[in-house]
Amino acid sequence: MNPDLSPLADALREADADGYLLDASSEESDQLYLSGFDAPDPFVTLYTPDGTHLLVSGLEYGRATEESSADSVARLSEYGYQERVAEYGRTEGTHRVVAAFLDDRGVASVAAPERFPLGTADDLREQGVAVEVLDEDVVTEIRAVKTDEEIDHVHAAQRANEAAMRAAEDLLEAATVEDGVLYHDGEELTSERVKEEIEVTLLRHGCALDETIVAYGADAAGPHNRGSGPLRADETIVIDIFPRDKATKYHGDMTRTFVKGEANEEIRRRYDDTYDAFEAALDAVEPGATGKEVHDAVCDLYEDRGYDTLRSDPSAETGFIHSTGHGIGLDVHEQPSVSPDGGELKPGHVVTIEPGLYDPDVGGIRIEDLVVVTEDGYENLTNYPIRLELE
Amino acid sequence: MNPDLSPLADALREADADGYLLDASSEESDQLYLSGFDAPDPFVTLYTPDGTHLLVSGLEYGRATEESSADSVARLSEYGYQERVAEYGRTEGTHRVVAAFLDDRGVASVAAPERFPLGTADDLREQGVAVEVLDEDVVTEIRAVKTDEEIDHVHAAQRANEAAMRAAEDLLEAATVEDGVLYHDGEELTSERVKEEIEVTLLRHGCALDETIVAYGADAAGPHNRGSGPLRADETIVIDIFPRDKATKYHGDMTRTFVKGEANEEIRRRYDDTYDAFEAALDAVEPGATGKEVHDAVCDLYEDRGYDTLRSDPSAETGFIHSTGHGIGLDVHEQPSVSPDGGELKPGHVVTIEPGLYDPDVGGIRIEDLVVVTEDGYENLTNYPIRLELE
Repeated sequence: MNPDLSPLADALREADADGYLLDASSEESDQLYLSGFDAPDPFVTLYTPDGTHLLVSGLEYGRATEESSADSVARLSEYGYQERVAEYGRTEGTHRVVAAFLDDRGVASVAAPERFPLGTADDLREQGVAVEVLDEDVVTEIRAVKTDEEIDHVHAAQRANEAAMRAAEDLLEAATVEDGVLYHDGEELTSERVKEEIEVTLLRHGCALDETIVAYGADAAGPHNRGSGPLRADETIVIDIFPRDKATKYHGDMTRTFVKGEANEEIRRRYDDTYDAFEAALDAVEPGATGKEVHDAVCDLYEDRGYDTLRSDPSAETGFIHSTGHGIGLDVHEQPSVSPDGGELKPGHVVTIEPGLYDPDVGGIRIEDLVVVTEDGYENLTNYPIRLELE
Repeated sequence: MNPDLSPLADALREADADGYLLDASSEESDQLYLSGFDAPDPFVTLYTPDGTHLLVSGLEYGRATEESSADSVARLSEYGYQERVAEYGRTEGTHRVVAAFLDDRGVASVAAPERFPLGTADDLREQGVAVEVLDEDVVTEIRAVKTDEEIDHVHAAQRANEAAMRAAEDLLEAATVEDGVLYHDGEELTSERVKEEIEVTLLRHGCALDETIVAYGADAAGPHNRGSGPLRADETIVIDIFPRDKATKYHGDMTRTFVKGEANEEIRRRYDDTYDAFEAALDAVEPGATGKEVHDAVCDLYEDRGYDTLRSDPSAETGFIHSTGHGIGLDVHEQPSVSPDGGELKPGHVVTIEPGLYDPDVGGIRIEDLVVVTEDGYENLTNYPIRLELE
């Protein structure tokens, strides 16, 4: 994969530290990224300008040497693990092994992330290793720029996402309406039932997922409301799916808004305005533009059309009340930000573009695609129609 | 739920600390347990002998007051969050808010878990708060003893597990055999296909899952091999399922071993011996017995019948080469241990009993149920037949 880690080397030089130390499982994305090793229990990664070195248990040693991207892999037993645990107990014994591992590589001072484990740090300090928290989130910044391989991974997750959205749309389309309520197979069609269809489809495409949003009516007016209960005709149904590929661990993300039956004039107007905001944002995406500029393009359009935004009114509870987008990769929310805080966009940044309007009296509306910033603009990684009404 | 937190109060008294501090998302089970609040981003929980107090963002405040089990909930803005972030940046500003929150409750010293975030600890120390790592894993010990409500949650997850095992067994049963390979719907029946069936069934029962084991033949001889590829007749297929209920977050766990077709004499002998070891372990489970004694009962039986165990030969690579079981709850592996290290079993402990035999030349065999220790023995939370051969 070979990402450019030179900003981390620079940060270490500035912090006057010999190396960068992680003690975490691969559930922490920085750990997975730097080590290239997927393991459920915490292990140690040391980055130095000379290379990346892992320290793992005997149980994981074989797999780590085969699967990780590290330049070297050591196991706990090489540093007297059993003797140290016998003398100092499992926790302190393990930390003394880490100290010996660092000493063996001539590392006397390390920088560490803000959420590095306190127990490890205190015991390393006790052993004479300097441990300081690195102020900047350097690895996260590096992760924001994706390699071609990473972009392929995101693209593949988005393919699965499209299949899931198709399954959900088909289910809504196949539903019948009685007294304003949707029915399928003789039962009320609920948010939960549509989510199940989405999740099963994703599973069959090799993706896992923690949550899915299928929110209708007033529920959909809360951008993070997951939705529940029977779905109704002629109201907006917001479907937001953000799956993770189980093999690569990269995410996709997409939102569509549907109305089963007929959208009233107000819904239609807001949908068209949101589509225009979506296009305005995409028009603004290019290398050198900032995330803030893309977000401002959306705010400009919405404000011109008479809606509140958090830019025009920081306490707004209706209108456009969230950011335009976020980076995505190993984490579902990561750098860069497409928001008032958003910095410069660079080729390889993968971001969502997801303007939306919310009002409990009208419902929620959001349209979201996933794009990668290229040398001369962007490429849309999403291939799914944008339409509102389902018959 | 009302667990007995007095051991934590005792540990604080011994450590001479005013409170116990967590700064973590609810992905850390101790945090979810103490706060009763399920949130994807880190938040602060302070336990003192007077009660449990949360510090959360404005975004989570409403939900935390409604859903958490805390005695009080504060939000960051009550302690000048915006001003402090403006002056010190987001990270240090947030930590200064935590210091103010502690000061407000008269807390000058805190104990913290080993994996407490270093950045928070260093900044709190800078602000004059004493922060020490608590040596013992007190909360984990408390969590090992389940309330009736927690036992119901595990039981419900195990119900879903039974449905998934049924779906897998039905799939194997429905398969046809050609040239020793299993076929279903005209295609080779693979480990991956059976896993998909299991995962879809669990999803339809409200459970999520990270991994499932469907391993056959030589693969199944590695206790943690997940398995892959086409399944074959007349060889052992080990299916180990450990789902998590999405609503309650509690786990189930069960293993069965099947042979599609005919088990040879060696497989049949090992299966019967493992069943006897399973029964011997269950016979040993009662309050006052230790996890070690239960594990020894399994080793005794296997060694009597001529197999290696890690007790008779710590470097054994065939025979009985893992522990007899583990606690289960919010984590899939937690206290107490049913192993050479296993301490006293108490009423409310929920443990797996899972003896097994492994040999690349014969395959793997494992039988696993989930039981809760009661006042006078145990109750088996698993209701699933134990049989080897499928026609």
